[in-house]
Amino acid sequence: MKPIFFTRGVPPRESIPVNALAECAKAVIVEEGVNVLQYAPATGYLPLREAIAQKKSVSVDRILLGQGSLQILDILLHCILKPDDTVAVEQPTYDRVLTLMRRIGLCIFPVDLKSDGMDLETLEGILENGEPIRLIYVIPDFQNPSGMVMTIEKRKKLIDLARRFNFYIVEDSPYRDLRYEGEAIPSIFDLAPDTTIQLSSFSKLICPGLRVGYAILPQNLVKTAARYAEDTYINPSYLNHAIVHRFMQNGRMEEHMVFLKKIYSARLNCMLSVLQENMSGTCTWTHPQGGFFVGLWLPSNGKPDLLSRAEANGLRLSDGRGFFVKGGENFIRLPFCALNEEEINQGIIRLSQLINK
Amino acid sequence: MKPIFFTRGVPPRESIPVNALAECAKAVIVEEGVNVLQYAPATGYLPLREAIAQKKSVSVDRILLGQGSLQILDILLHCILKPDDTVAVEQPTYDRVLTLMRRIGLCIFPVDLKSDGMDLETLEGILENGEPIRLIYVIPDFQNPSGMVMTIEKRKKLIDLARRFNFYIVEDSPYRDLRYEGEAIPSIFDLAPDTTIQLSSFSKLICPGLRVGYAILPQNLVKTAARYAEDTYINPSYLNHAIVHRFMQNGRMEEHMVFLKKIYSARLNCMLSVLQENMSGTCTWTHPQGGFFVGLWLPSNGKPDLLSRAEANGLRLSDGRGFFVKGGENFIRLPFCALNEEEINQGIIRLSQLINK
Repeated sequence: MKPIFFTRGVPPRESIPVNALAECAKAVIVEEGVNVLQYAPATGYLPLREAIAQKKSVSVDRILLGQGSLQILDILLHCILKPDDTVAVEQPTYDRVLTLMRRIGLCIFPVDLKSDGMDLETLEGILENGEPIRLIYVIPDFQNPSGMVMTIEKRKKLIDLARRFNFYIVEDSPYRDLRYEGEAIPSIFDLAPDTTIQLSSFSKLICPGLRVGYAILPQNLVKTAARYAEDTYINPSYLNHAIVHRFMQNGRMEEHMVFLKKIYSARLNCMLSVLQENMSGTCTWTHPQGGFFVGLWLPSNGKPDLLSRAEANGLRLSDGRGFFVKGGENFIRLPFCALNEEEINQGIIRLSQLINK
Repeated sequence: MKPIFFTRGVPPRESIPVNALAECAKAVIVEEGVNVLQYAPATGYLPLREAIAQKKSVSVDRILLGQGSLQILDILLHCILKPDDTVAVEQPTYDRVLTLMRRIGLCIFPVDLKSDGMDLETLEGILENGEPIRLIYVIPDFQNPSGMVMTIEKRKKLIDLARRFNFYIVEDSPYRDLRYEGEAIPSIFDLAPDTTIQLSSFSKLICPGLRVGYAILPQNLVKTAARYAEDTYINPSYLNHAIVHRFMQNGRMEEHMVFLKKIYSARLNCMLSVLQENMSGTCTWTHPQGGFFVGLWLPSNGKPDLLSRAEANGLRLSDGRGFFVKGGENFIRLPFCALNEEEINQGIIRLSQLINK
């Protein structure tokens, strides 16, 4: 039985614009030459910084490019915080961010996700009780791993809390532009551009392998973080930044987004209807209008040996506990973008057989 | 007056094989497609790992590719050591490595460089006195910043000490293949492949901007370091690795090395003869047979305000103290590869005027 992978949030092979990228790569090397092949400032390839600054209506001095957004977050955590500082995250949240935070020795305060975003009443309570939270990491749009979207009311309330209690909001937005239906909600950055750190990347919009991510930061933090980056890797690869920039400049991004949304929305709709057919009355799940993931909660406190039983039945799952500071036994992340409809169908049928056994 | 830069060890613009790299970039994307554009294992692009393993006669499991060798060193230091551990370095040494080590909170023990390599008698003495040195970082071939080469006797003696006192040797070899005359000495890795960590990169052999470096490690350390790398940046850019691999596979490396050696050896010879003409009897300097740097020592304990006086006289120098744990006021690093003969001539004349004033 060929296994079906409900594991990592990877884009499908067929989503990657190989030929366009080959042309962009050759063109930027021929035309820019040494400019993309020499040592360079750690802030990143200026034309891509400018393009992002223009799109986001901020000064180019606020844009830092890196080698994927995860590493930029690692750098920022090192620049802003010290071991034993307290941070807050949505629970569940992106597992790799928990790993980074633990590695630095931060105290991580998990705030449960409700259907409209993180539980801000609990957060406000602990802030009022004096918990010295210095930074909150959130993924407000099509959250990894749950697919949830934070309401505009909660975004505004979180900004109010950040101003009142003086903590950084780090808004990670890699899935924001992948909305398949419904109206976009302003990002936290849109609502409070001077007090929000926004991270994003081109991994889900063009391809992961170029490792091009970015952050919008206060100007002084760009300087500090670029210095830290320089001390770590001298500079990121300008070639990769320039390929992304050329792809955008050639006007490929718009048509490519239409193409991605078409594939992914069909797969999301398939996932939701197959869940409806097979899981109704047993499990609960989110109903995202975009992104890469549906979050699924099992009825009880998890199923013992679910992962190994799944593997024996041709299904690979991520351990839900990876997305939680505590708990997660009954959570399953269901990435849908890299699976065709037959695989989604088969995968959910196999999962339902395991759960309903 | 146009300034002359005796600052960073960058390759000259004319050394970078732009058109060949443009062809390689396009070809690997067209032919490898998603394989170089998708998420992938953190160990790096397998064909390049295999090519390096074959050249070095080790198992491919011992090769870790990264985004430049500096970041690999940062990862290794994090994996092997903890804050307050003691490491030793040559003095002077590569300034960025001192920055990394300080950032981690390591105790750095500097061992003075003699004309034949680091002062191993002093090192042996402190080891026998119980100094718990866990790792020694050396650049035995055309050292940065001094241009010195460690003799084979000292290489063997250092290996003996490493085995006797159980510390890691990290041999950084980015300049090793850039020998312009004389016979190559076996690397420390060649002499003790099982006990040496060797770092190197393609920054000085092809171009810096691709950010392709590598380490040869014990197998278990490849696993640990790859995990740390994955937790930091998921994976390095396979595109960049594949471009380097294609450049090698196309047989471009051999002719390119001949080309580089021809340019650089002329510049080195120019630097040495201009020093002879202008600095004899005032300063001492190294006489390397390869690499990027000549190391120069001023007669007294430095010259006050030399850097700012140099800048006012059209000459940019690096602060010698950056290469030292303690001292360095009378040291000047003279990179010669990125300057033409007229610039070398003018630069040394300006420097001699400042020093002899």
